[in-house]
Parts: sequence; C-alpha cells; structure tokens
Amino acid sequence: MYAAGDVRIENVPDARLIEPNDALVTVTRAAICGSDLWPYRTMEHSDGGRRMGHEFIGVVEAVGADVRTVKAGDLVVSPFLWSDGTCVFCREGLHTSCLHGGRYGFDDVDGGQGEAVRVPQADGTLVVLPVGRDDALMPSLLTLSDVMGTGHHAALAAETGPGKTAAVVGDGAVGLCGVIAAKRLGAERIIILGRHPDRIALATAFGATDVVSERGDEAVERVRELTGGFGAHSVLECVGLAGSTRTALEIARPGGAIGRVGLPQEEVIPEALPTFFGNLTISGGPAPVRAYIEELLPDVLEGRIEPGRVFDRVGPLDEVPDGYRAMNERGAIKALIEF
Amino acid sequence: MYAAGDVRIENVPDARLIEPNDALVTVTRAAICGSDLWPYRTMEHSDGGRRMGHEFIGVVEAVGADVRTVKAGDLVVSPFLWSDGTCVFCREGLHTSCLHGGRYGFDDVDGGQGEAVRVPQADGTLVVLPVGRDDALMPSLLTLSDVMGTGHHAALAAETGPGKTAAVVGDGAVGLCGVIAAKRLGAERIIILGRHPDRIALATAFGATDVVSERGDEAVERVRELTGGFGAHSVLECVGLAGSTRTALEIARPGGAIGRVGLPQEEVIPEALPTFFGNLTISGGPAPVRAYIEELLPDVLEGRIEPGRVFDRVGPLDEVPDGYRAMNERGAIKALIEF
Repeated sequence: MYAAGDVRIENVPDARLIEPNDALVTVTRAAICGSDLWPYRTMEHSDGGRRMGHEFIGVVEAVGADVRTVKAGDLVVSPFLWSDGTCVFCREGLHTSCLHGGRYGFDDVDGGQGEAVRVPQADGTLVVLPVGRDDALMPSLLTLSDVMGTGHHAALAAETGPGKTAAVVGDGAVGLCGVIAAKRLGAERIIILGRHPDRIALATAFGATDVVSERGDEAVERVRELTGGFGAHSVLECVGLAGSTRTALEIARPGGAIGRVGLPQEEVIPEALPTFFGNLTISGGPAPVRAYIEELLPDVLEGRIEPGRVFDRVGPLDEVPDGYRAMNERGAIKALIEF
Repeated sequence: MYAAGDVRIENVPDARLIEPNDALVTVTRAAICGSDLWPYRTMEHSDGGRRMGHEFIGVVEAVGADVRTVKAGDLVVSPFLWSDGTCVFCREGLHTSCLHGGRYGFDDVDGGQGEAVRVPQADGTLVVLPVGRDDALMPSLLTLSDVMGTGHHAALAAETGPGKTAAVVGDGAVGLCGVIAAKRLGAERIIILGRHPDRIALATAFGATDVVSERGDEAVERVRELTGGFGAHSVLECVGLAGSTRTALEIARPGGAIGRVGLPQEEVIPEALPTFFGNLTISGGPAPVRAYIEELLPDVLEGRIEPGRVFDRVGPLDEVPDGYRAMNERGAIKALIEF
C-alpha cells in the first residue's frame, strides 16, 4: 500500500530465513482484514510503500535451526501477530502482549498478502492444521488467524454465557464471528445491531435471534425494549467508532460487560459516570487469537461452526486491490485470496 | 447541609414508620463518608437544607406490618443504600441497581447522621448484628455499611487474587479498606499510592508491602520499577479524580484490571487506546455492600480484619460539623459519631 486507496501487487525480494527461530511459509490462502481498511482510508503517501496482510495459511518450506514444532511440508495457520509462546504474557494467554512478538509487514517481516512470509518465533506462532492444503474447510480455518478468534475474544470479554443476552454491535466479519462465538458460549438470546440485509441474513444463520437496524438513541431504545427495559448482559463492540462505542455502553444492562474488539477511533471512552453507576465492566482489546486456535479448531474441523461463510469474495492475488475497494465500499464482507 | 461548608445540627420531626416494609431505627453509631465531602465542597445554598449521612448502626424500635427478618430490639447495620433484596438485580448481588431501592437523605427518608432513621425495604436492607450496642467492634462493624464493602468491591472488580500484585490508588478510608480487602483475597504484593504518613502507616499495618508517594508520571514510573516494568495485575481506584484515574489506568499490567470505586469527577475515561492495546479490564462502580456484609462479618467478629482503625476521630452528634471540617482538611481520615 502506497497511500490511501493505492494498493499495488509488486515483485519483492524472496522471503528467506534470517533468524534461527524463523519459518519460511509459502502462502496458500490469505485474507483482507477490516483493520486493513483504516490505512486504506487514511494512509499518507509513502515512497517505499507498506507490506500488507496478517491473516494467512500456508505450507512450511524451511525452518531455522531452533524450530522444533513445525517442519517443512506442514500446513500451518498463523495468528495475526507472531509471538514466542514462552514469555510471561504468552503463558498467561495474552500473546498480543508477547515480550518478543510483533506485527506482520513491519521490521523486515513480510505481509500476509503475498506469496511467502518469513514467520519469526515459528514455534510460538504457527499451528499445524491436520488437513490438505485445498480442504473445503480452508475459509473457516483461515478465520482462526483473526476474525473468529477476535469474535471469540469479544464474547469472552463481554462475559457471554448460558442464560445471558448478548448484543453484537457491528455486522462486519468480526461482528458475525461474534454472533458465532456468543452462540457457542451458550448465550440464550443474541441481538445483532446492523442494517445490511445480506449480513443480517448471515447473522441470523449464525444464531442471532433479534435484529436491531436502528442507530444511535433509537437503537438503544430498541435494545431496551427487547430486554425488559434493562439492556444486554454482554455487549460485543466490533466496530470501534465513537458512535458504536457509545451505543455499546448504553445498551449494556447494569452489572453487564462490554467486550471491545473494534479498534477505538477516539482517545477517550465516553460515559464515565453512567458506566460507573451501572457497575459495567469494559474489557477487551486486540485478541490473543493464538490462545484460542486450539480451542476453536475442533469446532471448525467437525463443522460445528462455519465462520468461513463471512468470505463472500474469492480471487487470486491480482485481485487484492479490487478486494480492498469492494470491502471499503461495503460491497463485500470479507475477501479471501487463493494462491 | 445548607451549602458548601455549612453543616448544622437541627431538630427535625421525629422519624416514623410510613410504609409497611419500613423499620424505625434509633441510631447508635454513624459516620461521615468521603463522598459527603463532595457536597461539602460544592453544594449551592438550599433553603430547606439536605439530610446527610448513609452509614449507620442502630437499634430497631418498631417495624411495619410486612417486615419479617428484623424486629424491635435488634441491633442492625445498614448498607449505604436501601434495597428490596428480592428484585432481579438484588438476586444477582447488584443491590445498587435495586429496582425498588434508594438513597438515604432523599424523598422523605432520613439521613444517617441523625438520631433516628426510617429504613424502607427493611427486610432487604438491614442485617442483624450478633453483638451488644456498645461492643468494642462497633467501629469495624460500622465500616460494613460502606467503606469496607467498597474496598472489597474495588478489589473484586480489580480481580485481586493469590499471587497477584495489587496497587491501591488513594490512602483515604476506602483505599485503606482496599488494602485490607486485597490482602484478604490473597494478593502477594500490595502497593499503596499515597503520601500522608499516618495513613501510610495504617496501610502498612493492614498489609501494604510497598509505598509509592510520588504522583503522576513519577508514580507510574515507580510502580513499573517495583513490578519488573509491567505494572500491577489489579489496580484499586479509590479516589475518582482525573489524575488518579489516569494513574490507575497507566499502572495496570497488560491483561490487568482496574476496579473503580472513587466517584468519577470527569465525564470520560481517558486512555481509550492504551487500555485497548493492553487488554485492560475497567470495572467497578458503587459497591453493592449489602451483598458483602454476610461474607465480611465473620472476619470482623473474629478479629481477622480491623477496618474500624480507619476511624481516627470520634465524637457526639454535636461535633459533626467539626468532623466534616477535619476530614475536608485531611486532618482526619474518617469521623465516627457516637450517640
């Protein structure tokens, strides 16, 4: 990406092993993330450009001398951040705060929207998939790199559970995965806040029981009507805009929890006093999806959840620029890249 | 209280039973709360004045026809809010959101800093104390009406537990009770942020292991130094000012939790992005102390905790105006009123 709206496919030097804990991975599937749209909308021109992409599945071509858990030929999925798996935060399941981790596309690490990636901290980062590289489950497996784990994180942070009402703010890929996660965790009722008919249809297929298409104060009123006047026990904030954040805080029931996974676009959290008087819990952040892959994988492999249905656009690498355009115009929920 | 700084002792009509679920309680001990200092500093003049006080122990004189769990002669402690004990929120332990509850000193309900109080929803509100009215444990038992339960709430909201480091922001009565609560819940290390020697001495006696007397950025740096650069797992925010809130958020470790019990003096919560990237949990609010009395009572009765030591000023009703003055000037931590 060279600037807002300017995504190009270019030849770059081949990815190669550098550190002894690296793996070299040939990408077989990648995705465009909703978070890639922030720079797509706002990035200043950069002469050198920026490598993009952080969601991918691929085949291990080679590993450094210290790598123990993956080997050449393995099909692997990567979380959207790399992490060592051994530091104090990784051991606590908070791989997003890994002391030796980092982001794809920065500091000599390739982006996932390309043919090959050098994966640092391969042992801590990669998870071997027990399927062939073109298995029909590829789209769902690919969501384990980000959106399904992020929806799960939102649901956990929002303390979703049996008997509870969950409300999901946002009908993008993460919000839709949040619906899957809320249902998987036993929510009795799942309210989706969104207004795009195809996305709402998918949310309903995933388990949403109620749809609120209003916005702002009207949305708050509608959720209260649906919940006996009290609001939702668990609110999954899957957008990050000022308005959606405010809505998320206002539709929570006293004693309820808000799980934030949408990247906040404002420097403050509003509603300090109402959230205080309501004893609300505000939690969440970037999802430590590495911590969740093993837990979610069996459900994907056995077909109990189908998060891959969020991909409504599939194409080869050359179509990545069009994929960005389509997602930015909301003509696509999420684009999958096949190599 | 007629205005900021203007507290008077006056004769008012005798408290009496009005509703069938009322109890009439003759007050034997009461307290001045840190939260009473907000109006003491800011209240506009009111011709009628405002009844003050919401922490008290007393003897039941009479009960309404529907009251079942307390009877004339019982010595009882009241939480700082009254609540029915039966609504959906009370059943969940969130008595501060009781559908039929309310505050002392408003709407024909007397304040606790007086000789007698009509207690609405007596069955849901009052807890019988198995001691005599002048038992030596009175100061500690009185803290169950507010500050000890509030410190406990902060510690719970901050997810304090064994092996964790807790940091307590504020050395007032609530912060000091927060230290007791953190120790009681098993915190391995307890850092008190405060600078008044007598309060710090009490915090240390209650179990604080480290003292940070710096403020602002220096306090943040000092807590990080004490915690291997990471911050505290559990932060108890016991002040509510803009600066203390910011400090509380900044000294939390990634993945940590902040329990807010200081009444927020700002309309927004700062640090939306750092708290997001650190996956922090922000929780807390007015403490449902009614939910905690039964749990904390045995520890007080058996001397395992001594929260009554926060009272460093004792006097009769006539000295209430001086008690406000002393607390406001930080010449006293907390004033106890004996009848």
